[in-house]
Amino acid sequence: MKSDLEIAQTTEAWPIEHIAQKAGLTAAEIIPYGRHKAKVDFDPDQHSQENGQLILVTSINPTPAGEGKSTVAVGLADALNLTGAKTMLALREPSLGPVMGMKGGATGGGYAQVVPMEEINLHLTGDFHALTVAQNTLVALVDNSIYQGNPLQIDPSQVLLKRALDVNDRQLRDIVTGVGGHPNGVLRESGFEITAASELMAILTLATDLTDLQERIDRIVVGYTYDQQPVTVAQLQVGGAITALLKDALQPNLVQTLGHTPTLIHGGPFANIAQGTNSIQATRTALKLADYVVTEAGFGADLGGEKFLDVKTPLLGQHPNVIVIVATVRALKMHGGVAKNNLTAENIPALTAGLANLEQHIFSMKRYGVPVVVAVNQFATDTDAELKVVTDFVAVQQLKVAVADVWGHGGQGATDLARIVLQAATEPAEFQPLYLPTATPVEKLTQIVQVIYGGSGVTLTAKAKRQLQTFQELGWAQLPIIVAKTQYSLSDDPKKLAAPTDFKIHVREFVPKLGAGFLVALTGKILTMPGLPKHPAAEQIKVDSTGKITGLF
Amino acid sequence: MKSDLEIAQTTEAWPIEHIAQKAGLTAAEIIPYGRHKAKVDFDPDQHSQENGQLILVTSINPTPAGEGKSTVAVGLADALNLTGAKTMLALREPSLGPVMGMKGGATGGGYAQVVPMEEINLHLTGDFHALTVAQNTLVALVDNSIYQGNPLQIDPSQVLLKRALDVNDRQLRDIVTGVGGHPNGVLRESGFEITAASELMAILTLATDLTDLQERIDRIVVGYTYDQQPVTVAQLQVGGAITALLKDALQPNLVQTLGHTPTLIHGGPFANIAQGTNSIQATRTALKLADYVVTEAGFGADLGGEKFLDVKTPLLGQHPNVIVIVATVRALKMHGGVAKNNLTAENIPALTAGLANLEQHIFSMKRYGVPVVVAVNQFATDTDAELKVVTDFVAVQQLKVAVADVWGHGGQGATDLARIVLQAATEPAEFQPLYLPTATPVEKLTQIVQVIYGGSGVTLTAKAKRQLQTFQELGWAQLPIIVAKTQYSLSDDPKKLAAPTDFKIHVREFVPKLGAGFLVALTGKILTMPGLPKHPAAEQIKVDSTGKITGLF
Repeated sequence: MKSDLEIAQTTEAWPIEHIAQKAGLTAAEIIPYGRHKAKVDFDPDQHSQENGQLILVTSINPTPAGEGKSTVAVGLADALNLTGAKTMLALREPSLGPVMGMKGGATGGGYAQVVPMEEINLHLTGDFHALTVAQNTLVALVDNSIYQGNPLQIDPSQVLLKRALDVNDRQLRDIVTGVGGHPNGVLRESGFEITAASELMAILTLATDLTDLQERIDRIVVGYTYDQQPVTVAQLQVGGAITALLKDALQPNLVQTLGHTPTLIHGGPFANIAQGTNSIQATRTALKLADYVVTEAGFGADLGGEKFLDVKTPLLGQHPNVIVIVATVRALKMHGGVAKNNLTAENIPALTAGLANLEQHIFSMKRYGVPVVVAVNQFATDTDAELKVVTDFVAVQQLKVAVADVWGHGGQGATDLARIVLQAATEPAEFQPLYLPTATPVEKLTQIVQVIYGGSGVTLTAKAKRQLQTFQELGWAQLPIIVAKTQYSLSDDPKKLAAPTDFKIHVREFVPKLGAGFLVALTGKILTMPGLPKHPAAEQIKVDSTGKITGLF
Repeated sequence: MKSDLEIAQTTEAWPIEHIAQKAGLTAAEIIPYGRHKAKVDFDPDQHSQENGQLILVTSINPTPAGEGKSTVAVGLADALNLTGAKTMLALREPSLGPVMGMKGGATGGGYAQVVPMEEINLHLTGDFHALTVAQNTLVALVDNSIYQGNPLQIDPSQVLLKRALDVNDRQLRDIVTGVGGHPNGVLRESGFEITAASELMAILTLATDLTDLQERIDRIVVGYTYDQQPVTVAQLQVGGAITALLKDALQPNLVQTLGHTPTLIHGGPFANIAQGTNSIQATRTALKLADYVVTEAGFGADLGGEKFLDVKTPLLGQHPNVIVIVATVRALKMHGGVAKNNLTAENIPALTAGLANLEQHIFSMKRYGVPVVVAVNQFATDTDAELKVVTDFVAVQQLKVAVADVWGHGGQGATDLARIVLQAATEPAEFQPLYLPTATPVEKLTQIVQVIYGGSGVTLTAKAKRQLQTFQELGWAQLPIIVAKTQYSLSDDPKKLAAPTDFKIHVREFVPKLGAGFLVALTGKILTMPGLPKHPAAEQIKVDSTGKITGLF
C-alpha cells in the first residue's frame, strides 16, 4: 500500500496560478511562494458579493485509531466540487512539533490530501516561523526592559508571556533564565510553549485586518507591575515591530487538494490548548470566493467545535450553515473499550457502547440551532454490520448520515456525504450562542461543561479563584473562555472514554490573553508544550540526493 | 535627508523573473518567493563554463562611526555592471537580532542597497527560520533521547549543542532546563545562541550540495557519553529529518540592487562569532553565471577576511582575484582616538594615528598573495585634506586606492573603484594559505595572531588545554580554527583600537564543530548570544494600515 506521501508525490499538482484562477483570484491577488503555494492579497471587505455557505467539519473525541477529520474535510470539498458546486477548503496549518514527533503530517490522507504535502508540513510559507520569532522577540524585549532599569516596574516573577518554539520540547516547559548574573539578564523562572499555543498565534488567527492585528498586539498583557497593574505591549512601544514581523503571515496561504480544490491553509492547530481554527481572514476570503466553504475545527466537537461556535463565529459574523460530525467505526470501538491492536475484528457490543461519545457530540452540536449531519469515515476493515449499527443509530437521532471512503477514493468516495450536506445547507438554521457575553467566567465554564461535555460542573483551585477576582477588578471578567483540555475525553481525564457522566472539570489556572481577547482555562493536567515519544517520527524522515523526501506520513 | 528605507521604497524594483534573466538563469532555475525574491535551483557542477573572477570586499575594524563594507560591495557591483562587465553580488543574509536591536538593516545604504529591503531584513525566504527550527528540533531530539532511557549514554552535563533563536536575548545565554521534575525532562544547564552562530548555519554555509549537507549533519557531535566518547547525529538517526528541514534553505536567494545587479544573498553573518561569509553554494553559482562576482567578508579583515581565505577558500576551490579593503575617514579618526560626537571636525593628527589599523589589514591581506586595493567610503563631512592623507598613505604602500561615494550615488559613485578593481583583477596572483592543515591548533592560532592581528601569541586556559588534549586523542586536532573575537579591535579587548602591539589572544574555551569541520576558539569575553540595547531599534519600527513599514534603518 502506498503511503500518503507517495500518493501525494505521484499526483501532478497544478501550477498555483491555475488554482488561483479557479478560485476567482486575479494574478495581482496572489504572491507566489514556490510553484504550488501562494500568499493571497485579498481584502474581503472590498468585495460586495454575498458570502457562500459555511460547512464546519468536526468529530468525536479522537483515539489512537484515528478519526480522519481533515481527510473527510478534504474529500467532502472535492466531492462538492465534483457536483459542480463552487467549493473551497479552509484548513488550519500543521505544526512541525507533531510532524517530528508522534503524528506525522496533518494534510489529510490517501486520496484526500492537500498538496504539496512535504512543503505544507515542513515550512509552508513561514507563518509559524514568523510567529515564533515575533513571540521570542517580544519576550526578549520584555526581559530587556526589566534588565535595562525596569522603567515600567515589571515584576520579574509576574511575567505572563512565555517564549515559543514549533518543536515538541518538554525540556523547555519549565526553565530558569538569566543564570550567571550580570550581564546575563535577571534570574527568573519561565518556560516555552509550542508556537500554536502562543498568544500571537491566537491573534493572527482572529485578526480581521492589519489594523486589528496591531491593535490586538498592543493590547497584549505581558505581565504585572510590582503593584499588580497589567503592563501592555503598547506601553513597551514595540507593537509596530511585532506587527511588521507578522505582516506577511496575516495573509492566507493558497494550496490545492489532490482533486485541485482551491484550499486556504491558515491559522494554528491544537484546539486542545489554543483557539485552533482556520483564521478569520482565510475563512472570510473563502466565503467571498466560493459558494461552499468547507472548514474544520480541531480535535473533537467539545474542543474545536465549541471554540469555533462560541469564539470564532461572533468575530466571523457568520455561523456555519451545516455541521458535519466525523466518526469512525474503529474509534467508536475504542471508546467502547477495545484495545488498539484488536480493532480489525468485528465487535458490535463495543461499537454500540462507544456510540455514547457520538451521541454527546450530536447533542451538543444540535444545541447551536444549525443542521447537523454525521459522516462515517470508512476503513477497509469496517464490516457492513458495523457500519449499519452506526448509520441506524444516527437515523434514530433524526439526522442524516453518510458513509464516505475518502482515503481510498478522494472526492469520488464522498458523493453521498456531499449530497446530504448540500441538502442540509438548504434547511433553516437559527444560531443560538451557548452563553451571553455578560455571563461570568464560572457561568460560561459551567455551561460548556454541562452542555458540551455532559459533565456536572467545574471546580477551581484557590489560585484560579484569586485570578478571577483580579480579572473582575481589571474589567476582564466578560471575555470568552478558551478551555485547554485533553482531546481524548469529554472530561479532563484522558482515560475516561465514551461519554463519562457526573464528572467535574478542574481549572488549575487561568491565562489572560487580552490581545487574543479571551481567558484560557487550563484544566486537568493539560500542558501547552508537548514532548517527543520514545521513537520520534523524525527517525523515519529521509531525503535523497535529488531532494525527494520519504518517511513523512 | 531620506532614510535608507525611504530610498529603497521609492525605487522601482524589477520583477524577479527579469533579474533572473539578466543573470542568465532560466525560468525553470528559479522558484519565486514573492514578486522580488526567488530561490535558485542551479547546480554549478552541471555547468562547464569557466568561473568568473572573485572580488572579496573586507574592511578595517568597524567602529560606531560605520565603515560601510556592504554598501561599498553593492556600489562596486553596480559600478562594474555600468562598465559593461557582467557582475553579480554574493552577500550574507541579515540576522533579525541586530535588526530589532542595535544595527538596523544589513542591506547596504543610501543609493547602494539591496532590495526589497524590508523583506530581506525581516524574513527573506525563511532560511534563518528553517535553521532555527532545525537546530531546536535537533537539541530536543538529543534531550528526548536522554529522557527516554538514554540508550546512547549521553552525559547530560556534556551536551555540546545549544538551542538557537534569531533574537538578541541575553536572558537565554545561560539557562537551567528540565525544571520541575518528571515529566519535564532531565535537569541540566544549557543555553541559546543566536541562529547565525549555530553549527547548522555553518554547515549550510559550507555545504557543497545536498549530499554534503546530510553528511555534515550526520557528523555533528552533539555531546559526549559518560565515558567521554563523542555522540553524533548519525547515532541518533535523525540526520534525514534535519536535512529535510534545511533542503530548501540550501538554495541561494536571488534579489537585486537598486541598480538591478543580480544578487545572491545566502549564508549567515557575524564573522566575529561564526564563519560569517556568503555560502559556498551561492558563491559558486554566481561564479558560473557572471564574469565578476563581488562578495564580502564580515566585520574586519582580521575576522571575515581571514576566515574567508583560510576556511572558505579551500572548500570553494577558488581564491579571490582581488581583495578590497574598505576604510572611512570617520572610522580611522575613531581609531586615532576621536570620540563619536567629534567626527565631523577635520582632524589630521587623529586620522594619521588611526591609519595604523588600515596598515595592519593591508599587511595581513597582502600576505595571501592576491592583489589588494583600498576603497575609501566617502562621507559628506570628509575634507579634501583628510581624503588626501588616506590616499597618499595607501600610495606609499604601493597599492591602488579609490574614493567612492556609493551612499550618495550608487554605482555612479564607484567608477574609479571599479576601474582599479578591474585593473587589479588582471594582475597575477599566487595564493598562499596562512597555515598548513597539518599544523597544530596552537600553531594555527599563533599564525593568525601574529600575522593577521599583529599580536605576539596566544594563551589558553586550563580548560582549553585539556580540550586540545581530548581533540588530539579523537583525531580532531588538524581541523581549521574559527576564532570568535570582538570585531572592534585587532586584539581580544574591544577597547584597544588602531593597531595594538605586544598583546596576546586569550582562548578561554574551544567548541568542536565536526559537522562544520572546524574548531571554534572563544577568545576574550566574546559571547555567542548578543543582548538588546537600552533603546532597541524595535521601538522605531511601525507599519501603517496598508502594510508599509517605516523606521527600519
